[in-house]
Amino acid sequence: MKCFSIDLGGTHATCGLVEDDRILASETLDVENAGSLARILPRLAESLKRLGGGKIPHEGEVSGVAIGLPVIVDFYRGKALGCNGKYFDSHEVDLQSWGQESLGLPLFVENDARMALLGEAYAGAGRGFRDIVMITLGTGIGGVAMIEGKLLRGKHAQAGCIGGHLPVKFDGRKCTCGAVGCAEAEASGWSLPLIVNEWTGIADSSLCRYENIGFRELFREAARGDRSACEIRDRCLRVWAAVAVGLVHAYDPEIVILGGGVMKSADAILPYIKSHVQKYAWTPWGKVEVRAAELGDNAALLGAIPMVAEAKA
Amino acid sequence: MKCFSIDLGGTHATCGLVEDDRILASETLDVENAGSLARILPRLAESLKRLGGGKIPHEGEVSGVAIGLPVIVDFYRGKALGCNGKYFDSHEVDLQSWGQESLGLPLFVENDARMALLGEAYAGAGRGFRDIVMITLGTGIGGVAMIEGKLLRGKHAQAGCIGGHLPVKFDGRKCTCGAVGCAEAEASGWSLPLIVNEWTGIADSSLCRYENIGFRELFREAARGDRSACEIRDRCLRVWAAVAVGLVHAYDPEIVILGGGVMKSADAILPYIKSHVQKYAWTPWGKVEVRAAELGDNAALLGAIPMVAEAKA
Repeated sequence: MKCFSIDLGGTHATCGLVEDDRILASETLDVENAGSLARILPRLAESLKRLGGGKIPHEGEVSGVAIGLPVIVDFYRGKALGCNGKYFDSHEVDLQSWGQESLGLPLFVENDARMALLGEAYAGAGRGFRDIVMITLGTGIGGVAMIEGKLLRGKHAQAGCIGGHLPVKFDGRKCTCGAVGCAEAEASGWSLPLIVNEWTGIADSSLCRYENIGFRELFREAARGDRSACEIRDRCLRVWAAVAVGLVHAYDPEIVILGGGVMKSADAILPYIKSHVQKYAWTPWGKVEVRAAELGDNAALLGAIPMVAEAKA
Repeated sequence: MKCFSIDLGGTHATCGLVEDDRILASETLDVENAGSLARILPRLAESLKRLGGGKIPHEGEVSGVAIGLPVIVDFYRGKALGCNGKYFDSHEVDLQSWGQESLGLPLFVENDARMALLGEAYAGAGRGFRDIVMITLGTGIGGVAMIEGKLLRGKHAQAGCIGGHLPVKFDGRKCTCGAVGCAEAEASGWSLPLIVNEWTGIADSSLCRYENIGFRELFREAARGDRSACEIRDRCLRVWAAVAVGLVHAYDPEIVILGGGVMKSADAILPYIKSHVQKYAWTPWGKVEVRAAELGDNAALLGAIPMVAEAKA
């Protein structure tokens, strides 16, 4: 099966033409910091046309277009629902009509983290498993669940997809989603600078040298022995481990897959979370597998085939 | 439909004969602090015989026996799995054979908190809803989920039933389940005395007068204005509110039902949790309903009919 696949992130959009578990061609566009979805649709259509060799192939050649959006998505109705600051107009855009009128192809929408899990399950670290939790550590934290081979979606399309918003500190920091002490609010790309800024003893830390502090800088300075960096790194690891245990308790998976940009420092993260989950999660049946994602930025693109297959089944 | 129903708690077992949403007769037995399941089975059989008017009715009259156990249960295989200190031998007892040989009736087993949710969904606060989270506040904390009218069970029968073990404090107290900072470890009947004991300023508190401190005593002294009691009560409310938000984010319900013995102080609990969930949970579709359970100690007993109906479907 061949599909177009679009992974819309906060700052980049990646468009691909995929066949089964291979990406035949792809290109990445800069998008202006996740503003208006309506405004970038024409650019996406042009990109798909380029990938199609100068034209959009008809439905006989390509089965459809799968789009992952960083918002809550109702897959069954093919609609974006609530956003959390990203693509503010996504719930107003009639994606189905755009698919038909501009592309002449059936179009399917899903939450981007769910689509990445589909990709890892189909062609990556989750192959052979049907009960999977995937956690993506990045600007935000994604937490997605597949149970018995099916994505968990729930009544309002929110079940099993906002695991980064489990409260891991009941008296914690305010989250952008409105809740308190969410994992995202306690250890993610957006909350890290706030945490660093308020850290006791930060004035003496080498972290102060950076204008924009991210996990790359945090892990680098921790590896060099900076005390505050070590403390903050260790606190982040405990937050991520807690959300992993929470998701294991919530969804009962065989495997937890860790992905996202922060996993570029996997050496500093994976052993800790694996050991914590296997030691502390309550799983009388045995031990949960904990693995790094394998597909990197391609995970969501490769989720297109199982996604379109489910929609057409 | 008529069924026998057994709710096995930590200190009491309640046996009932139920017809649809009515309990025709019931009796409660003392059980010696949740020790051996094998040892109390003969007493349960005697109780059912008494409820049957001196004999166990045959399958034409009574459709089966539904049992709720305070352990992880595999409903499909009719087997208890892991326990957490309660009924240590429950996974070794062949309940199916006991049902056939001692009762001559088909027997179905489920986790007690799941069975209570079934009861509330069928005949209590959850009527008319198909997407439900139920939280039971008692010696432990139960957290159970129904999605699209079906209990969530998962790969190893643990999904959607150990919501009291979501970590709400990533650097918190060790839980009896092995994990860290579970809601249960931070605000439940068993952890309350430990928390009180370590509270700063507790020496000056009226709580010190009690040998056994439970939520009844805590709420009483807080209502009288004792400072430590107020602080600890407020902390417990925040823990419960956080686990409610966590379960809403995990399972996407329309309604959260609060039950369990601690809800005898519902006046002090329900308004706080309702307000917190409706204010802080990320639910762009609308507001989650938050209600007190209606069936009290009868919830699990009344779960028998939907449970047997599902098993026989």
